[in-house]
Amino acid sequence: MPTTDGTSPDSGAASPVRSVVRALDLLALFTEDRATWSVRELTQASGLAKTTVLRLVDTLQQRGLLWPDEQGRISAGPGLLRWANLAQATWRAPEEARRVMRELSDTCGETVNLYVRSGSHRICIEQQEGTRNLRHIVRVGDELPLWGGAASKVLLDGADDETLAAVAAADPRGRTVTELREEVDEARRAGYAVSHGEREVGASGVAAPIVTGDDVVIGALALGGPTPRFTDDAVADFSAAVQDAARRISDIGLGGAA
Amino acid sequence: MPTTDGTSPDSGAASPVRSVVRALDLLALFTEDRATWSVRELTQASGLAKTTVLRLVDTLQQRGLLWPDEQGRISAGPGLLRWANLAQATWRAPEEARRVMRELSDTCGETVNLYVRSGSHRICIEQQEGTRNLRHIVRVGDELPLWGGAASKVLLDGADDETLAAVAAADPRGRTVTELREEVDEARRAGYAVSHGEREVGASGVAAPIVTGDDVVIGALALGGPTPRFTDDAVADFSAAVQDAARRISDIGLGGAA
Repeated sequence: MPTTDGTSPDSGAASPVRSVVRALDLLALFTEDRATWSVRELTQASGLAKTTVLRLVDTLQQRGLLWPDEQGRISAGPGLLRWANLAQATWRAPEEARRVMRELSDTCGETVNLYVRSGSHRICIEQQEGTRNLRHIVRVGDELPLWGGAASKVLLDGADDETLAAVAAADPRGRTVTELREEVDEARRAGYAVSHGEREVGASGVAAPIVTGDDVVIGALALGGPTPRFTDDAVADFSAAVQDAARRISDIGLGGAA
Repeated sequence: MPTTDGTSPDSGAASPVRSVVRALDLLALFTEDRATWSVRELTQASGLAKTTVLRLVDTLQQRGLLWPDEQGRISAGPGLLRWANLAQATWRAPEEARRVMRELSDTCGETVNLYVRSGSHRICIEQQEGTRNLRHIVRVGDELPLWGGAASKVLLDGADDETLAAVAAADPRGRTVTELREEVDEARRAGYAVSHGEREVGASGVAAPIVTGDDVVIGALALGGPTPRFTDDAVADFSAAVQDAARRISDIGLGGAA
């Protein structure tokens, strides 16, 4: 079956290629907050054998995706720039949609994120940072779990049992597929979802669906911030504002691949 | 030995991981000009077995790096956005350096590229497009060979025999290591290099080195455009302008990882 959620039609048949997964896991350790690693640190953080890390690092360096400095420490390589323009050309939301996100962030004072579902994860594809100092930090392109957060409840709408089982299996709170489905159904009925401290203690969110003309959920618009600012009164205001903005973005569409 | 050219200290010992290389080759087929592929097309373009392509595509999709649409066609995935921001945070040249590049492009009317060496390749890390219609097209992040182009002669300064042998082995004109080294030495003596139609028929370039305080080459600043505009008179003007700009950028530094 063709899908819109990043799951291959053939995903049942094919098992992931282990060394590719390991290489991507190594690359994922490099972040803007932690941009430089030694081989020893990569070995410790990945749990892989040092010889495996050396071979993977070497392969990624040969392609310019990693970069050694004078001291033998390793950073992100310039070959990654190749995908910067491609990813942004494909996934950048239309300017009108980003304007709606900016307005929502200005109105509510919190950070606004736009997520899509990718298999049993969600990925942030657009962000407008809040105006306040204490912010909820998610990076564009970050892959986050679907077992927590308001956006997850919205994005799991229409997910099959296999996806929900994968999400439930990863859930540290150990919810069952039935319990997850109830939360998702509740979000669908309400038209929005709320979360407090599910993925991160002290962080709250309010999310509403971005839908196609056929009412298929293709994204989640989420307002995120510290729990003390997400009082019941604030959530009432936020949920109305997020739903309104999500409807406007649904009319505009996400453009690109989404 | 620690290096500054993207070659691992351990590259002699480790062989590249084949399935990682294949996965990166598949990803490299996705460009802004050709953003969508079917599995059949990927199989043909890569020369890999269809089952191999399916497994690799599936693995990359599970990580959000590729993305299937309703019709089962495949595009760049939102997971690439993560690499986009990391690469730009690490490799974006300082604003003053980019300003020098813009001025050079405005003065000469041609496209200005900034390259670094990555093993036996060079990678474009910054670009200012020329003002004229017929432009020399290189994308930021593109990995280009070192056997051709003015920037290559500049970047190979200080390269060891192993690197020059790898470059010579890939050279369609079949130059020897000795011939390559002569070109590199000549560029060093002159302070700049010129090329006409080496990598692409009808394309010319003039390049000068970006150096550290110790006079180690860390990059090449190159002006590129169609050969008919690179007359001897124009090259005399261009080489002076490129050398001047390269000196100014050398004083500023490249920042980040370079």
